[in-house]
Amino acid sequence: VVAHGRAASAAAASLAAADDERINAALRAMADRLTSRIEPVLAANRDDLGAAKQAGMAAAMVDRLLLDAARITSMADQLRVLAEAPFPPVRRTLRDLPDGLCLQEWRRPVGVLGANFEARPNVTLDVASQLVKSRNAGVLRTGSAALRSAGALIDEVIAPALSSAGLDGSAVQLIRTPERWAAFELVRHADLIPLVILRGSGASTRALSHEAARNGVRTLAHADGGGVLYVDQAADQDRALALIERGLDRLGVCNRLNLLLVHEAVWPALRPPLLNLLDRLGVRPSLPPHRHPRGHEWALEEGQEATVTVDTVGSALAAATIANTETSGLAATVVTEDESTAGEFLAAYAGTGAFWNATTRLLDGFKLLALPETGINVDHVPGPRGPVTFADLYLRQYVVLPSAAVS
Amino acid sequence: VVAHGRAASAAAASLAAADDERINAALRAMADRLTSRIEPVLAANRDDLGAAKQAGMAAAMVDRLLLDAARITSMADQLRVLAEAPFPPVRRTLRDLPDGLCLQEWRRPVGVLGANFEARPNVTLDVASQLVKSRNAGVLRTGSAALRSAGALIDEVIAPALSSAGLDGSAVQLIRTPERWAAFELVRHADLIPLVILRGSGASTRALSHEAARNGVRTLAHADGGGVLYVDQAADQDRALALIERGLDRLGVCNRLNLLLVHEAVWPALRPPLLNLLDRLGVRPSLPPHRHPRGHEWALEEGQEATVTVDTVGSALAAATIANTETSGLAATVVTEDESTAGEFLAAYAGTGAFWNATTRLLDGFKLLALPETGINVDHVPGPRGPVTFADLYLRQYVVLPSAAVS
Repeated sequence: VVAHGRAASAAAASLAAADDERINAALRAMADRLTSRIEPVLAANRDDLGAAKQAGMAAAMVDRLLLDAARITSMADQLRVLAEAPFPPVRRTLRDLPDGLCLQEWRRPVGVLGANFEARPNVTLDVASQLVKSRNAGVLRTGSAALRSAGALIDEVIAPALSSAGLDGSAVQLIRTPERWAAFELVRHADLIPLVILRGSGASTRALSHEAARNGVRTLAHADGGGVLYVDQAADQDRALALIERGLDRLGVCNRLNLLLVHEAVWPALRPPLLNLLDRLGVRPSLPPHRHPRGHEWALEEGQEATVTVDTVGSALAAATIANTETSGLAATVVTEDESTAGEFLAAYAGTGAFWNATTRLLDGFKLLALPETGINVDHVPGPRGPVTFADLYLRQYVVLPSAAVS
Repeated sequence: VVAHGRAASAAAASLAAADDERINAALRAMADRLTSRIEPVLAANRDDLGAAKQAGMAAAMVDRLLLDAARITSMADQLRVLAEAPFPPVRRTLRDLPDGLCLQEWRRPVGVLGANFEARPNVTLDVASQLVKSRNAGVLRTGSAALRSAGALIDEVIAPALSSAGLDGSAVQLIRTPERWAAFELVRHADLIPLVILRGSGASTRALSHEAARNGVRTLAHADGGGVLYVDQAADQDRALALIERGLDRLGVCNRLNLLLVHEAVWPALRPPLLNLLDRLGVRPSLPPHRHPRGHEWALEEGQEATVTVDTVGSALAAATIANTETSGLAATVVTEDESTAGEFLAAYAGTGAFWNATTRLLDGFKLLALPETGINVDHVPGPRGPVTFADLYLRQYVVLPSAAVS
C-alpha cells in the first residue's frame, strides 16, 4: 500500500497541473478504449466469473461480476457524462486587503485518495474516473472476486487513457492483493493517503472507519443507512402508498424504505391498504412490539431484506426525532398535504437528505445532482455530507496576492 | 462533560430555530451587559489574578489573565462586529427534479460543539459568541487560571443575554472543573459533541487531537504552525527585508516567520542586511548546518522563541516542496517581482494560506475575512481549512420538496 501510495503521489502533480481539456480528454479516451480495447478486459472478466462459479458463489453475486455489452455501454456513457460535467470555479476573489493586496479562495486537489469498494468491475472505472475528474491521484482496493477484471481495466483502459491525454498513467493505482488486510492497510497512512472513500455499508465499512479514525485518516462513508418515511395525519393516502411502493423497488440498497412511521390518527385507515400493498410486494411488515431496535437496517440482514419496520407516532416532530436519534441519519421523508407540518418536519430532521412527498430512493448523487456519485457520507460535521461527487474532493486554500496581478 | 453536553443539546433547538434578528440581539445584549454588568466579572477576575500571583505565575502570563477597561471595550466592539456580520444564505435552490420536485441545499447547525481554549477571559466570550452566531450550542473548557472569570462571563453576561433575547440561556455550557482530564473528556463523546474546536498549538493540542480521533470526534485544530518565507532570485531586497520584519513582530504566534528560505543566487547579497535586521530585532538566525529539523517551530520552544531558521534553496519549486513536506502546512509566502515564479510557487504550495509579497502574519480569520476567528484547521481533507469562522460551522443537507412550495 505504501508503494502504491508513493507511486500515486508521484503522479499527483501531473493531474493537479492539467488543464480542464486534458482531464476531459482522458475521460473520453477511457470511454473510447472501453469499446476499442475491451477484449483483454472481457478475458479477465471471464477468469473472474469462472473462479467465482468454481468457488460456489451465489448466482446473484456472480451476476454482479459480469461485464456484458449493455454494462460496458452504460460505463462508457457515464464517462462521457463526467467529461461533459462543468468544473467548479477554481479561484474566487473574496475581497481587497490593505497594502494593494487581494484575497482569493482556491480549490486544490487533496493529492492522493484511497477508495475501497465492492467486487463489481464497473465500480473500478466509476471511482477512477471521478478521481481523475477531481484531479486527485488514487489507490484503489476492491474485493478479490473482481480483482482480475479491475486489473485489466486499469492496465488496458485507465492507465493508457491517462497517458494518451498526456497525464501520468500511474496516477490510479490498484492494490493487487486479494486479502482483506489490504483494505485495513489502506486506512493506516494519513501522510500518504489522508482521505479514503469507503463504498457500501455494513460491518466491514464500520470496522474500516474505526481503523481509519485511530490512524488519523478521514473517511467518506456510511456504514449504516435505511430510509424513513412518515405518513402524516394530513397525508394523501394514495400518494403515501405510492411513495411506500417506490421506496421498496430495491431491497438491498441503503436508501430504501426501512422504517415506516404512521400518524396514529390515520393508522386505522391506512393499515388495510398498506398490508395489501406489502403483501403484493412480498415485503413483511415488522409491527410493534418489535423484537429489534426501531432503526434496525433490514438491507444489512441477509435473508431478511424483504422486511420493513412499521410503527405509529403522535406527530411530525416525534417522527423527525425518531429518525434523528434511532436511525443512521441518511434520509427521511414526510408525506403530507399540509405545508406547515412539512416545514416542521424538515426543520427538525437533521439527516443528510430531508424530503417532502418524495421517496428516500432519491438520496443518490446521480438522481439529485446529475453527477456520478463518489460515495455517501453521514458524518455529523462540516464538509462533504450526503451524496459526495467529484466536486467535493478538494482542499480550501486562502491565497493573498497583489491586486495588480489579479485584474 | 456528559451532563453539560446534554444540557447544551437540550438548548440547541432554541438556537437552531431562532431568526437572524434574535441571534444578533443576543450578541448585542452581551455587548451591553459587558459594560452595564461588568462588576461581578471584574471581581471574579481579581480572584483569578490574585490566585495566579500567589501561585507565582510569570508576569506576562498574569497579564494575559487581566480584564481591564481597554480589553472590555475591545470585547464589546468585537461582539458588535459579529452582530453586524451578514449570515450566509441558509437555503439555495440547486435544480428542478422530475415529478414536480425541486432540490435545495440547506445549511444546518451542527448541534453542540466543544471548544478548548487558553486561559484568557476574553476568549470565553469570543468563542461563545461565535457559537451563538453559528446557531450552535456549546460546551466550553478553559485553563484553570481563568476559570473564575470565565464562569462569571457565562453567568453574568452570556446566559442572561441569551435569555433576554428569548433564547435558551443554557445553550453555552462551561466545564467548571479545573483539572486537565476534563479537556480529554470533552473529546470522547462523539454522539453528544461531534466536533471540538481546539485553540492554540503545541503538545497539548496534539494529544487532544489524537484522543478525539480515537473516539470518532472531529476537531478543528492546528497543533503545529510556523510561517515560511521564500526570498526569490527576482525579489526586491527592500520588500523582502520589510516582509521578514513584519513576520517577526510577534514571536509566540503560530503564523510568525519561522523558516526563511533564500535563493542561493541572492544569499550573498541578502546575508549582511538580513543579519543586521535580525540583530536589531533581537532574533537569532539558526544557520546551516542545523541541529534541528528544518521545520522546527520556535514559537513552541520556551525561551527560544527569538530564533528563525534560515536556509538556502535552488528554486521557488524547491522552496514550496520544503514548505509542503517539512512544515505544518499553515502558511508560506513567496517574495518575488516575477509573476511566473510567483505562480509556480502558489501552484505548488498546498498549505492553508499561500501568499505572494505578503506576510504570513495575515493568516488570521479577522485579517483575511474581517470576521472573528473560531480557530485554525490544518487538516489535509475537504471541509473547513485554514482560518475557520462561524460561517464554517454548519452541516450540508439536501432537501427535496414540491416545486410549488418553493416559488
